[in-house]
Amino acid sequence: MGSKCSVGLDFGTNSVRAIIVDAADGSEVATAVSDYKRGEAGVITDPSNPHVARQHPADYLECMVECMAEALAMAREAPGFSAEGIIGIGVDTTGSTPIPVNAEGTPLALTEAFTGNPNALAWLWKDHSSMAEAEKITALAKEHRPHYLQKCGGTYSSEWFFSKIWHCLNVAPDVFAAAESWVEFCDWIPAVLIGDTRPGNVKRGVCAAGHKAMYCEEWGGLPDAEFLGLLDAKMGALRPRLYERAYPSDVKAGALCAEWAGKLGLPEGIPVAVGAFDAHYGGVASGVAPGTLVKIIGTSTCDIAVAEKTGEPLTIPGVCGIVDGSVIPNMYGIEAGQSAVGDIFNWFVSHICLGEASTHAELTEEAAKLKPGQSGLLALDWNNGNRTILVDARLTGLLLGQTLHTTRAEIYRALIEATAFGALTIQNRMAEYGVPINRIVTCGGIAEKNPLFMQIYADVTGTRLEVSRSAQTCALGAAIFGAVVARKAAGGYDTTQEAQAAMTGVKDEAYEPNPAAQKTYRELYKLYRRLHDAFGVAGTTDVLADVMKGLLDIKNENGKI
Amino acid sequence: MGSKCSVGLDFGTNSVRAIIVDAADGSEVATAVSDYKRGEAGVITDPSNPHVARQHPADYLECMVECMAEALAMAREAPGFSAEGIIGIGVDTTGSTPIPVNAEGTPLALTEAFTGNPNALAWLWKDHSSMAEAEKITALAKEHRPHYLQKCGGTYSSEWFFSKIWHCLNVAPDVFAAAESWVEFCDWIPAVLIGDTRPGNVKRGVCAAGHKAMYCEEWGGLPDAEFLGLLDAKMGALRPRLYERAYPSDVKAGALCAEWAGKLGLPEGIPVAVGAFDAHYGGVASGVAPGTLVKIIGTSTCDIAVAEKTGEPLTIPGVCGIVDGSVIPNMYGIEAGQSAVGDIFNWFVSHICLGEASTHAELTEEAAKLKPGQSGLLALDWNNGNRTILVDARLTGLLLGQTLHTTRAEIYRALIEATAFGALTIQNRMAEYGVPINRIVTCGGIAEKNPLFMQIYADVTGTRLEVSRSAQTCALGAAIFGAVVARKAAGGYDTTQEAQAAMTGVKDEAYEPNPAAQKTYRELYKLYRRLHDAFGVAGTTDVLADVMKGLLDIKNENGKI
Repeated sequence: MGSKCSVGLDFGTNSVRAIIVDAADGSEVATAVSDYKRGEAGVITDPSNPHVARQHPADYLECMVECMAEALAMAREAPGFSAEGIIGIGVDTTGSTPIPVNAEGTPLALTEAFTGNPNALAWLWKDHSSMAEAEKITALAKEHRPHYLQKCGGTYSSEWFFSKIWHCLNVAPDVFAAAESWVEFCDWIPAVLIGDTRPGNVKRGVCAAGHKAMYCEEWGGLPDAEFLGLLDAKMGALRPRLYERAYPSDVKAGALCAEWAGKLGLPEGIPVAVGAFDAHYGGVASGVAPGTLVKIIGTSTCDIAVAEKTGEPLTIPGVCGIVDGSVIPNMYGIEAGQSAVGDIFNWFVSHICLGEASTHAELTEEAAKLKPGQSGLLALDWNNGNRTILVDARLTGLLLGQTLHTTRAEIYRALIEATAFGALTIQNRMAEYGVPINRIVTCGGIAEKNPLFMQIYADVTGTRLEVSRSAQTCALGAAIFGAVVARKAAGGYDTTQEAQAAMTGVKDEAYEPNPAAQKTYRELYKLYRRLHDAFGVAGTTDVLADVMKGLLDIKNENGKI
Repeated sequence: MGSKCSVGLDFGTNSVRAIIVDAADGSEVATAVSDYKRGEAGVITDPSNPHVARQHPADYLECMVECMAEALAMAREAPGFSAEGIIGIGVDTTGSTPIPVNAEGTPLALTEAFTGNPNALAWLWKDHSSMAEAEKITALAKEHRPHYLQKCGGTYSSEWFFSKIWHCLNVAPDVFAAAESWVEFCDWIPAVLIGDTRPGNVKRGVCAAGHKAMYCEEWGGLPDAEFLGLLDAKMGALRPRLYERAYPSDVKAGALCAEWAGKLGLPEGIPVAVGAFDAHYGGVASGVAPGTLVKIIGTSTCDIAVAEKTGEPLTIPGVCGIVDGSVIPNMYGIEAGQSAVGDIFNWFVSHICLGEASTHAELTEEAAKLKPGQSGLLALDWNNGNRTILVDARLTGLLLGQTLHTTRAEIYRALIEATAFGALTIQNRMAEYGVPINRIVTCGGIAEKNPLFMQIYADVTGTRLEVSRSAQTCALGAAIFGAVVARKAAGGYDTTQEAQAAMTGVKDEAYEPNPAAQKTYRELYKLYRRLHDAFGVAGTTDVLADVMKGLLDIKNENGKI
């Protein structure tokens, strides 16, 4: 290993991971995970409201110390390692996970007055209690500030910053009143590390600001006070206590303070990067670049892309986030996604087959014996709504073409294919609006474990699929920004791209589209797209009476009567 | 019991049933079943062609003797029974099951020259090897004799008389050449019993003739020789060797001959009724009458209705058979049906749940706890195509509305509901063309065993559902016609209606529509019908983007978010 290392701190939904990587090539020197101790695997719920999901900031701090210590202990086993060679720290977290803080930047949950108050905790990304507020924000923005919605796919989500803050005002006015400001989880951790959490001093990341808080330099940053005042006068009054500017992650949030250097066992004064969301750093660590789409495939899928700035503002209808600098500084960062991918296969196995983990392997083995089109089945991948390009949580699943002989494996394959068709729909939309994709890099468990899934995606999208080298792309992305804020002189890099070139890579095996399969999938996709538009796009009319027969024709052509 | 009895002989796909009933009230004195011995449960298949399904006529004769003897032995245990009190015999069989016969009316399969030749056997109703011929007949009739198709739903089927005969000519010209004529199974058995099977003497039943051979007095009986000559000159040449007239079942085919009286142990000379198909007799024995629809519910469903003759010819588009006198003499007999009902539930349990018979009970119990509309699911019942009202074998299944929480029981219930919506669609179509239904009598296993199924049908159709008293309605129907051809003077009845009034009935429990459930199902049916037309009716356009949301609205109204 080289003598210089970088640290990545990756705060997930249930645990924190610390990673120490060789700054020269991104190879992992050590890694450790610490599970949150409070709630259910770190998530504090409300038995009377299934939409509530909160976290305790103390979990963040305690677990960060714990896993950093463990990672350092492991690193010390590596020949040539020295903690003194650590040159920088990057931080990524879930989001939007806003935290109400007092004037010192201390989370209200950590103050005596609000101990045990669930509304004073961090409002975890998957907290959906703010649905009514999100709908109102969308409606108000449509009427008064339509441009606000252009960068976030046309709909403001209940998972996002202002929906949650407003909901807090509505259900817990005491917490709202006590909050000097609200700070995103990914911004708060770097502020803690540099020893200055005062809201006005916190360097906010453009990733969270742009993707979740309608921040855009085109209109002067955050939504204006007048607009927020339309929500509630108190929301308008909060505006000056939020922030004016947000920064990409090649900017240093500050230097590691003595107190936290001591707690973490890291050198005092090393730079800490402005924070961002986990998936975006996963994109960076998987080599996202113009033309290269990164897909983080798990229970859902997050797509990360970037586009060069041309001087023209970039808008892609139905793509839920386009933010200048949110992934790679000075490029548009583009986030899209599918609200259920692995979750659909898990649903079918657990709820319908009443199967176990091994059932996935059995069904995959059977499904792999089928040819594209052979089952006569076609599905829509909307069991959890459609995030991109329809941005509609109220869509549901569809399965079409079943006979009295349809098997589990045929359905399983049809569900995989449906998610691949969903992926192609996103890719086509990006291409239509000037962001063509010629290479996909995947990461996540499915990408590493399921060659059938990968081959179907290659065949459906007609795109080469590669697999990210790192198994911990989000944490590696954080470490990459740790190396970037350290700069070249200190053993890091002056640009994100230089760091990517040195520190990221893909595995040897790749998945190339099979021309015969691609041909059949092109036919199937025509039918998928017609169902997609018929059921998903208001106003679409189509003659669908040929769809079932089209599937039978494809089925016959592919060898099964 | 009264002193007079009637015999019904019911020839099914796998066995023959003999029934002896009290002619006074239709109560069962004795019954016995004999399974066919040849092939797989009586069905002779061809490993190289899955569409082939044949039967050996010797099975029919041997099993008839066997089960009649057993039934008589059982009847002799009943106080007051005497075989001398048997006043008549009725016969029903599967169909269209045509048999090639020689000049004596002996099936070619029973002659030395054709022993072992599969094409000389009886061509069982479910033999689908004649699909190409059926399509050509449909096309030729559309062009040259469009009225021929009006009474059979617009499409001539591969299961029917002329398709099979023509296919025989095409694949086995030697069999075709040796056949003096072709006789339906249901016509051949009565001819055997009266001791005269010569084709010219066989009294053909109007049920088989009208429903399967395009026979109609309006156009002079069977299709004319010129039309049959368009199929093949040899088909045209066969026409004079078929038949000129067909008869309803209140007509006597003849008197039981000495030879068969001896073989069966029945009195010589008693009348034998003209034969018909099993489902039609099931309708009669379940009390079919104007306004009363009989549903024989099993793996598929057969709907039997009748309508008074008004002087105007009756046509109901998409209803596959309307034949004067085919069910009750002097009324239009109407046959409709759903190509899969129990088969869809069996598919879901066996292929998807990998369950057993008990799984049906478990899923039914769970499904019964759900309220209409609560699952957010909607299905089309087309896993085996649609027989009525779309008459399209190339339609397939559809399931819509699934989320990540959808359960097996929810799908099971949605599948039951889908078949009920299919049933309502048939009922509505009949009503639109002047055949309103205000009462449904069901028979078959599901009707007796599954109250959830029955209640859903009552709620969906808004019609009172009753259950036929007899568990053996087809055989009872045959016995009813045995009593009718015996006439009142001999202890029978002069009309079918008089026999029905005395010999049929329903069970005490009935299923009344629940107004609240009916209301929800009315909303769901609107959506079902839109999917039905969108996917099933060529040329239909609709804006379907509100369908999934409509289901969610109904789901929310019915108590589950």
